[in-house]
Amino acid sequence: MAVPIKILGFGGSFRKGSYSKAILNAAKELAPKDSVIEIFDIKDIPLFNQDHEATPPESVSMFKKKIKDADAILISTPEYNYSIPGYLKNAIDWVSRPYGDNSFEGKPVALMSSSGGMLGGSRAQYHLRQAFVFLNIHPINRPEVIIPSVHEKLDANGKLIDPMTKEKITELITALSEWSRQLKK
Amino acid sequence: MAVPIKILGFGGSFRKGSYSKAILNAAKELAPKDSVIEIFDIKDIPLFNQDHEATPPESVSMFKKKIKDADAILISTPEYNYSIPGYLKNAIDWVSRPYGDNSFEGKPVALMSSSGGMLGGSRAQYHLRQAFVFLNIHPINRPEVIIPSVHEKLDANGKLIDPMTKEKITELITALSEWSRQLKK
Amino acid sequence: MAVPIKILGFGGSFRKGSYSKAILNAAKELAPKDSVIEIFDIKDIPLFNQDHEATPPESVSMFKKKIKDADAILISTPEYNYSIPGYLKNAIDWVSRPYGDNSFEGKPVALMSSSGGMLGGSRAQYHLRQAFVFLNIHPINRPEVIIPSVHEKLDANGKLIDPMTKEKITELITALSEWSRQLKK
Amino acid sequence: MAVPIKILGFGGSFRKGSYSKAILNAAKELAPKDSVIEIFDIKDIPLFNQDHEATPPESVSMFKKKIKDADAILISTPEYNYSIPGYLKNAIDWVSRPYGDNSFEGKPVALMSSSGGMLGGSRAQYHLRQAFVFLNIHPINRPEVIIPSVHEKLDANGKLIDPMTKEKITELITALSEWSRQLKK
Repeated sequence: MAVPIKILGFGGSFRKGSYSKAILNAAKELAPKDSVIEIFDIKDIPLFNQDHEATPPESVSMFKKKIKDADAILISTPEYNYSIPGYLKNAIDWVSRPYGDNSFEGKPVALMSSSGGMLGGSRAQYHLRQAFVFLNIHPINRPEVIIPSVHEKLDANGKLIDPMTKEKITELITALSEWSRQLKK
Repeated sequence: MAVPIKILGFGGSFRKGSYSKAILNAAKELAPKDSVIEIFDIKDIPLFNQDHEATPPESVSMFKKKIKDADAILISTPEYNYSIPGYLKNAIDWVSRPYGDNSFEGKPVALMSSSGGMLGGSRAQYHLRQAFVFLNIHPINRPEVIIPSVHEKLDANGKLIDPMTKEKITELITALSEWSRQLKK
Repeated sequence: MAVPIKILGFGGSFRKGSYSKAILNAAKELAPKDSVIEIFDIKDIPLFNQDHEATPPESVSMFKKKIKDADAILISTPEYNYSIPGYLKNAIDWVSRPYGDNSFEGKPVALMSSSGGMLGGSRAQYHLRQAFVFLNIHPINRPEVIIPSVHEKLDANGKLIDPMTKEKITELITALSEWSRQLKK
Repeated sequence: MAVPIKILGFGGSFRKGSYSKAILNAAKELAPKDSVIEIFDIKDIPLFNQDHEATPPESVSMFKKKIKDADAILISTPEYNYSIPGYLKNAIDWVSRPYGDNSFEGKPVALMSSSGGMLGGSRAQYHLRQAFVFLNIHPINRPEVIIPSVHEKLDANGKLIDPMTKEKITELITALSEWSRQLKK
């Protein structure tokens, strides 16, 4: 039997009851057997300062190590002001540094976004994809997991219950695993 | 004589000797007589957490007040990973909240970007412009202050000495002041 | 009584029963009394060739003149491949040329997009907004008229019947007229 | 010996002496031995009309066939109004249709852009990359071939003579060939 694809998942807002964290947790449960998702909480990663990049704080070193050890990356995000939330971009900025030590280098990646509104955080995804060019990350194109009206798709405990969204996420993780195996060859 | 246009400037990385801060300082000195630039340092603004937006930290309240009191906004930024630096986006995210209290509402804005590379941080500018749609900010289109090889345009003390860049910045502040007067009518 | 704001509207696909043309026609009917919308059909504008820009075809000269004579611009578009349809971008490319004779210079503009899908053509709008920076067009930010599932909002004759969409379009034309008056001062 | 990777190249403006066509021709000559570039001229592809997509004009059928037969795609483009030239987007729009017959499906792709200005057409590249998500094309990230002041890099006959640009293009075709072999496995 194949060794499972190790996926590192991160993202989601810092507030209690974060919808995008709920989506990330759902993905962890929905991962097919040939993959396993570990979730890393980025809330302890401080604001980036280039003067400290050579000796980063513990939270950053840990995050960088987790990413390097992973076969693939899964990002779940809300959209702030039609773009990437600052705290998420900040965590990514740390991981890409110092020069010559970009932990994302060559990794396969998949994206999920969600919002209370109609466009489901899609604008944050396209800005992330532009960052991926520099980071030399290889995103999958399909399916796109864009979740509008996300609050209607969770139960009172913040658990994803919408069948179509669950199916879409399962498809995403499956596609990410296949893409990872293909790029590994 | 006309009352000077009050411009609030912010941005620039947190490292010592930040190039984009040097550019912001240059703009302050180059501002024509009918405008005045105050610089706000965003380094004390913590990571955004929606649970705290109703009672934000002092640094955020101060920043929001400064922006509301200003006639116009000037942003100076480097580019991180082909997009907006996380710390800058994070500061903007705070200012746009809570819902119904977006301090940027209706303000005129001008942009400057700089980088050591060839494209001068331009990609960060276009992502910022997309955020401005939601923020309902009105950016000027011309001139675009995009500064490549910025390190070659500063002296040993980090002071902007390149005549063409200085001229471009002067044009930008002049255009921002005119745009501000036009929108005020 | 104020002189009505003259708005030139264009866009929409070339197929019979184009949804985005239906939206443009609806806007013409919904325009408040202090504005009037004329629609220009771009279907006769050929593919751009810079060798012919100094002596453009009749359709292009006419289009350029109509735009120059207008107080404001209204664009209605579908989304093709997550961006601006080629034929629409092509028409805009002609109008921006030759160098020094950009007919859009300084005009106020408003956008409408529609699609059969969930995101309502929004991605085409943000690419258009980036083009506006170079064109020195001043877009309004709000409301954003983004129309998903557009086919469900038209009757059998292709006439817009959805009340909320009609209201949004009326708001858009009202905001465009106000923005035009503000920029004229 | 390995079967050469078949690359279909297209793009470049329609004017005589097009710089981006010169770049495409240079790429054809610079292709390493394990790859071969065929150039397709898109100038006969008419404006897209969905009513004709089921029975497209001969030029479109030919273009679609060439793309399907290719192992990889190479696009060379100028930038018009900070985005993709209309005629290039129009050709891409045809190739993606009708629904279910996207000729680009799953292909590896590489990009080159050039301009007389400072930013080398980079903005057109990022808009193309967004279209690639829908088209399910897999672009390489590095190197990015972005050519500013392109007119200074060609001789009087429009032949690329700049050594650094030639080296970059050679790197690009090499990387595209490797990426194609990797995705084929």
